[in-house]
Amino acid sequence: MTLDIQRAGTIDQQSLFHPFTAITDLMADGPTIMATGKGVRITDIHGQEYLDGMAGLWCVNLGYGREEISAAMDAQSRRLSFFHAFNGMSIDVAVECAEELLKRAPVPMSRVFFGASGSDGNETQAKLIWYYNQLRGKPEKKKLICRWNSYHGSAVLTASMTGLPGMHSPFLLPMGPIVHTSAPYYYRKAPEGMSEREFSRHLAKELEELIEREGADTIGAFFAEAVMGAGGLIPPPEGYFEEIVPILRRHDILLVMDEVVSGYGRLGTYWGAQMYNVEPDLITSAKGVTSGYFPMSACFISPKVWDVIESNAAAAGLFGHGFTYSAHPVGAAAALASLRLIDEENILANVQQQSDYLFAQMRAAIGDHRAVGDIRGKGLMVGIELVKDRATKETLPMADRTGRQVLKAAAARGLITRALGDTLVFAPPLVINRAEVDELVDKFAAAVNDVLPA
Amino acid sequence: MTLDIQRAGTIDQQSLFHPFTAITDLMADGPTIMATGKGVRITDIHGQEYLDGMAGLWCVNLGYGREEISAAMDAQSRRLSFFHAFNGMSIDVAVECAEELLKRAPVPMSRVFFGASGSDGNETQAKLIWYYNQLRGKPEKKKLICRWNSYHGSAVLTASMTGLPGMHSPFLLPMGPIVHTSAPYYYRKAPEGMSEREFSRHLAKELEELIEREGADTIGAFFAEAVMGAGGLIPPPEGYFEEIVPILRRHDILLVMDEVVSGYGRLGTYWGAQMYNVEPDLITSAKGVTSGYFPMSACFISPKVWDVIESNAAAAGLFGHGFTYSAHPVGAAAALASLRLIDEENILANVQQQSDYLFAQMRAAIGDHRAVGDIRGKGLMVGIELVKDRATKETLPMADRTGRQVLKAAAARGLITRALGDTLVFAPPLVINRAEVDELVDKFAAAVNDVLPA
Repeated sequence: MTLDIQRAGTIDQQSLFHPFTAITDLMADGPTIMATGKGVRITDIHGQEYLDGMAGLWCVNLGYGREEISAAMDAQSRRLSFFHAFNGMSIDVAVECAEELLKRAPVPMSRVFFGASGSDGNETQAKLIWYYNQLRGKPEKKKLICRWNSYHGSAVLTASMTGLPGMHSPFLLPMGPIVHTSAPYYYRKAPEGMSEREFSRHLAKELEELIEREGADTIGAFFAEAVMGAGGLIPPPEGYFEEIVPILRRHDILLVMDEVVSGYGRLGTYWGAQMYNVEPDLITSAKGVTSGYFPMSACFISPKVWDVIESNAAAAGLFGHGFTYSAHPVGAAAALASLRLIDEENILANVQQQSDYLFAQMRAAIGDHRAVGDIRGKGLMVGIELVKDRATKETLPMADRTGRQVLKAAAARGLITRALGDTLVFAPPLVINRAEVDELVDKFAAAVNDVLPA
Repeated sequence: MTLDIQRAGTIDQQSLFHPFTAITDLMADGPTIMATGKGVRITDIHGQEYLDGMAGLWCVNLGYGREEISAAMDAQSRRLSFFHAFNGMSIDVAVECAEELLKRAPVPMSRVFFGASGSDGNETQAKLIWYYNQLRGKPEKKKLICRWNSYHGSAVLTASMTGLPGMHSPFLLPMGPIVHTSAPYYYRKAPEGMSEREFSRHLAKELEELIEREGADTIGAFFAEAVMGAGGLIPPPEGYFEEIVPILRRHDILLVMDEVVSGYGRLGTYWGAQMYNVEPDLITSAKGVTSGYFPMSACFISPKVWDVIESNAAAAGLFGHGFTYSAHPVGAAAALASLRLIDEENILANVQQQSDYLFAQMRAAIGDHRAVGDIRGKGLMVGIELVKDRATKETLPMADRTGRQVLKAAAARGLITRALGDTLVFAPPLVINRAEVDELVDKFAAAVNDVLPA
């Protein structure tokens, strides 16, 4: 590093186009520039240390500075720094990685398709759905049902699938055959007095009406995160998938689970599909597959889809889809090391244990706070929705940017959280221990009280 | 590696969904599984060595096993294995990388936006074009003009932009506001007796007619690779950009240069924009930025576009676009090491020298071969189009798959090429030396003669 620390903020402001950033905030406040990381902690260029309550962006599941992953990447980088899998070429380590991934799938899966991000993974799934249905003689079965508040990526189609208006209108999206249905957002969307189970039935009924209105023969797939992440940290209400899935089956609609955040242990089960007992036809994964050390996505294709593709392969010829970095050897090495650590360190048990403790401590610390409307989540995905009035659920004035204020107060106390409007979220590294959970809760409760005195 | 070499081929066939592969070929022939690489050479799991005439997929520009890049990645991975640039966060090494990239831009550029692949780079550009024109009060200025035979990516929009029918119809594409215009494919598309310069004027006229037919107020941008890669290795005819660019300017249409393949020295200039003396409004780069060691894309945004974005930032609020791996620290470290090597090793001079030698030797070896219709390219991008009849340019029977036969014959002789139909292409590492060029030409000429005896 030859970066001049004194000038770093200015260079950043004058060079880097930041993703998901308000340019005026960046220009006013300057960037926070990180330099090192170890375990659950990161340190910025000025030496300020933070407990990273977000594992980067829901991805550094095994923590920073894991010697085992870096060493595996380095050995592979020196052995074979790149090769591809186009035209029947392959790489030993990518073959091994695909095999190990299939062993860990929640239901029997036929193949793995690699890419470099959750976005490209969901773009791949959309193309596979169209490919599959065209091979079945049903090219018109093309629409994708996605949910408001979902996050499925940032490429043109996946941003369109995403159910966040702020990602649509500035870019003249959505584009493509996408239909949005309601978010399973019990706290905000369930009619007064309705139970979770009833709300699930209510959403299922709405979905079935949507399918009938659009025509089942025009609908290819339904996309769902196990627990919604960037759209507000929203776990499904009780019985949600139980109500939804039979409707999809009845109408020959594929179920795609977007497990980019939930995969590889974040919920305390290996997959969200296991947590909610569903059998997806397609699974998109990324993030946790390498703990974020290397950009990689892995899409899982079920026998139902693969058998159609394979049995039509002679007529179809070349499968004209793929990315330069599909099956990158260094990514495969990072994934193999990560998968091994997830097993060896019994990560799932730690998630279950720390999740229970974190929710209990968070509720004890701020559960009765006047501005805390809802504490929700699953595993190590935690959301705290702040409100003006607990009783009426009235929202805080948008102009106050209260979520952002709390985020800044937490940062000043050495804790990184993420503000989705006025819902503050945590998705810490899955290796977090009890003392670190205590610290996270203490600092966050203090930050909430800094901004919103009890 | 714990992969059983005897079972590796079968495991591959049963686990990995290969990009851009005919499944029937994979099942019949088995995969070729690579294991190690050094310099311009790679070795498969059975110990067979190959001279990699394609630098992986046009990307391993500095060759395999470069200690400097691996060491930089490893040091960064241990220092800070991941962080992001969302919401004003940043990473020291990404800031430095953005600054170094801007220093090397072919024309003054304002900002760099990072991603993880050429596909996501071009998806980003499309969204930026729509964002920019909406901010200017011209939301209807949205169509993207792309060229037949172009390659711009494999996500839904970028596959649609790509001008290859085999990437469209199986997936029910193109989708989105895309208009295709003719490829600057002089060998095949220029009317008999027309000079290159006249053909360029002819294409410019066609473009202008297209713009007038569609309405300039509906057209946002024109996308162009400097030299077309995956669509047949097609350099622009003489005067092409000189004829095209003024038309775009006259109609307020942005010029996006897709320099995913051509950037970072492949043509013997740092950028294709310099080779063809054009001033792009947006540049997409990837591949060579890290020599393929790490998935990274870097989009360059000109002052013309950035100034509109920045001056509207207060009203626009959060810029709702980005990828988890935008500004990945390990990628930035790989890029910084690569940029340094390109300078220190005077890579551009080597490309110029070896390019001249390679074209001369290739023409000497097979220029008069009865089946060699055209030898074309620029820098270290070389295409050899095989035909049935040199005089009439009649194509070989498609069912013979002659390009594939030559590719296999070359592989049997220890040389990797790539077959785009019956055009065989080379894009070797930019560090290739004279003896390696000789070997490449000798083996390729022998492979051509194996399949098509003179």
